[in-house]
Amino acid sequence: SLEVCSLFTVSDSCFRGEAEDASGSSLKSQVEAAEVFSDAEVIQGLVPDERDLIKGSLIDWSDHQACQLILTTGGTGFAPRDVTPEATKAVIEKEASSLSCVMLMESLKVTPLAALSRSVCGIRGRTLIVNLPGSKKGAQECLSFLLPVISHAVDLLQDHACEVKALHQ
Amino acid sequence: SLEVCSLFTVSDSCFRGEAEDASGSSLKSQVEAAEVFSDAEVIQGLVPDERDLIKGSLIDWSDHQACQLILTTGGTGFAPRDVTPEATKAVIEKEASSLSCVMLMESLKVTPLAALSRSVCGIRGRTLIVNLPGSKKGAQECLSFLLPVISHAVDLLQDHACEVKALHQ
Amino acid sequence: SLEVCSLFTVSDSCFRGEAEDASGSSLKSQVEAAEVFSDAEVIQGLVPDERDLIKGSLIDWSDHQACQLILTTGGTGFAPRDVTPEATKAVIEKEASSLSCVMLMESLKVTPLAALSRSVCGIRGRTLIVNLPGSKKGAQECLSFLLPVISHAVDLLQDHACEVKALHQ
Ligand code: NA
Repeated sequence: SLEVCSLFTVSDSCFRGEAEDASGSSLKSQVEAAEVFSDAEVIQGLVPDERDLIKGSLIDWSDHQACQLILTTGGTGFAPRDVTPEATKAVIEKEASSLSCVMLMESLKVTPLAALSRSVCGIRGRTLIVNLPGSKKGAQECLSFLLPVISHAVDLLQDHACEVKALHQ
Repeated sequence: SLEVCSLFTVSDSCFRGEAEDASGSSLKSQVEAAEVFSDAEVIQGLVPDERDLIKGSLIDWSDHQACQLILTTGGTGFAPRDVTPEATKAVIEKEASSLSCVMLMESLKVTPLAALSRSVCGIRGRTLIVNLPGSKKGAQECLSFLLPVISHAVDLLQDHACEVKALHQ
Repeated sequence: SLEVCSLFTVSDSCFRGEAEDASGSSLKSQVEAAEVFSDAEVIQGLVPDERDLIKGSLIDWSDHQACQLILTTGGTGFAPRDVTPEATKAVIEKEASSLSCVMLMESLKVTPLAALSRSVCGIRGRTLIVNLPGSKKGAQECLSFLLPVISHAVDLLQDHACEVKALHQ
């Protein structure tokens, strides 16, 4: 089960203090309220829309902070500064495009503009990384679409790792 | 808003003059008739199914001709000469697979053979590149599925670029 | 039309003889019973969840055994040992993500856990490679979703190759 979850807001304006991190706060409440994540510690981070800073943070949370799940919000659109998907692709070892596809299919039922999210999902080590959109509403909706399967994904990443360890001993 | 749109037919037989470029002509009419693109200049091009020639043309139209939107038609299938998606992947800096996914989902409502399109969409600089299928009917349909969001995508690519410029001054 | 089809089970436990290859056997019956594949020779293989062994087998069946279609089953999930999609990506020359997307969309009608398959489909030379899930039920279902288009895809890969040959003579 999920022990540590990192919420990661990617936003120039939040980083500069010009906007409130509404999506991050709302995601924190949503994760803490989710039954499947009831015991998880939720850590929040904030980075500007800079590819190398996003990459560095993803690597740090995955490799050193032992987060089983990293949810990013922001930077997935078509604006020139939107580079969260590219930073994510650069650090994941395995892509999980089905998760992005599920978010897209469900989001399209809400708005055709869902087609403008370029969300990437994937695995780095034992960590699942999911790009959520930047808007509070979009991020909340997309997380809710994944809740039925995301804890199972986290379990598979963790459980199997233990089995593999046992085999090697 | 869209100023310059390039339509790009990828076809050996059209290039050799053995077939009429019906898809290209029909797309031109469709773009010119679309309200969202009402003021756009539409330029047409024609290349054979050669990866390097397609790449070269995409780079030229993006970087030097300042097209905000490039629509290709043809070369997205399973035949050995179909290399438009590979040429596109080689030149884009960011993938926009949601757009391909929307075209697929909507096209599957028309025919199961839609599964045989390997369309890639993505961004190079400020230019959005969209692979449409080669058939006149398929290309028209796919463009119509994207019309509700494509001008918004183009606007995001342009507007934000101006904002960024303003910030740097 | 399909002449040689390879079925490829990727599983540590089957490879070590600790589990029966139920998915492989069931897929063999399904392919042999499919009208579109009525005359195809079906060959079965078995490899452990090792990226290099999967890659080697895929290359061998594509380049030396002249299989027009390779169906893998297993190794597409979120467990650390699941590397079939990564091995597949490493050997294909063209991706056919629409096929994966069709399997996902149809599978989601059966179970939300379909989102945990990371299936990759693509083309190497004249060979179509399709990752099916590891479970007998999931593999059978996913193959059935592709049956309406898969033989057409195989034909395109083959027919066009002949046309191209004819042109070069
Ligand atoms: Na992809």
